[in-house]
Amino acid sequence: MPYIKLDSHLPGITGLLETRKDTAQPIRDLTQFLLRGQNTLTEAERELIATVVSNGNECRFCTTAHTAAANLLLGEETTCSLVKDDPDTAPVSGKMKALLHIANAVRVSGKNVTPQLVDRAKSEGATEQEIHDTVLIAALFCLYNRYVDGLGTALPDDASYYNTLAQRLVNHGYTRLPQGYSHIRP
Amino acid sequence: MPYIKLDSHLPGITGLLETRKDTAQPIRDLTQFLLRGQNTLTEAERELIATVVSNGNECRFCTTAHTAAANLLLGEETTCSLVKDDPDTAPVSGKMKALLHIANAVRVSGKNVTPQLVDRAKSEGATEQEIHDTVLIAALFCLYNRYVDGLGTALPDDASYYNTLAQRLVNHGYTRLPQGYSHIRP
Repeated sequence: MPYIKLDSHLPGITGLLETRKDTAQPIRDLTQFLLRGQNTLTEAERELIATVVSNGNECRFCTTAHTAAANLLLGEETTCSLVKDDPDTAPVSGKMKALLHIANAVRVSGKNVTPQLVDRAKSEGATEQEIHDTVLIAALFCLYNRYVDGLGTALPDDASYYNTLAQRLVNHGYTRLPQGYSHIRP
Repeated sequence: MPYIKLDSHLPGITGLLETRKDTAQPIRDLTQFLLRGQNTLTEAERELIATVVSNGNECRFCTTAHTAAANLLLGEETTCSLVKDDPDTAPVSGKMKALLHIANAVRVSGKNVTPQLVDRAKSEGATEQEIHDTVLIAALFCLYNRYVDGLGTALPDDASYYNTLAQRLVNHGYTRLPQGYSHIRP
């Protein structure tokens, strides 16, 4: 039972974004730009960053949703699962391992991002834009996780919801679809 | 020395927003709406929420900047100082004490917002919109604090910077001023 009345029975972030379209618009804009805009990090890599942060923050809705999106983009389920356990042993590039360590540091505190973590990312070939975007994606999901759990939003009744949501996120991104286009409105 | 090259020597968040205008725009829009939009919480009350979260996250730039903004809006420096120590003993309304406890909980984790904290806020007269906005402001400053510290941004050389910045935030809000309007561009 959410702590505030939401317009519909949409779970997790979806009910919040539909109920408060005013605050939703800039949140959608920032997410669309960071996770779907032109970038030298792939969409899957950016979804992995969102997933490890949400997983570290133990936000069940966000972790399951972005795991499903990452899996769909990657075409397999192993990488995301391993990344959540330990980036260093996961089948991702050295650059991504280093960026995921930065994301995990940001999750706890911005102060945990050390020169050593940044140097490792740079030595693995990460650009300054990639480092910037990793920090900001991690910070954005610290916002999302707190928004979703801080208002006590509901989980979906049916776990298949996440797969439908992931298809929506992969095919249409984070912008709002016209009314009636889909019953899934993240 | 910041971890990435910033366009100018603007400290804290200001250099990030000027260097990355693409991601800055939705961040500015969300902040302007939440902290300066029409609301039953005063601008000072919303700055107090931003301050206690930044203080709890030990983000020196954000804490000092929003303390200065809250002080300017309140016309005194005692309340903000006391609120950072303990909302319950500060000279703010019962509703604000309860909302500040929610903000402090959000700061640590969304899961720390309990039904008891929400019930207390409601019994003190907080509306559901006020509870929503408190949670989202707290979550937004968890983003800001991580963004500012996670990229190792600089502090201003001169502490008077914060007062000038606070005047800018009080008089013009969080939207971007036209070029040349002011040397302070938060």
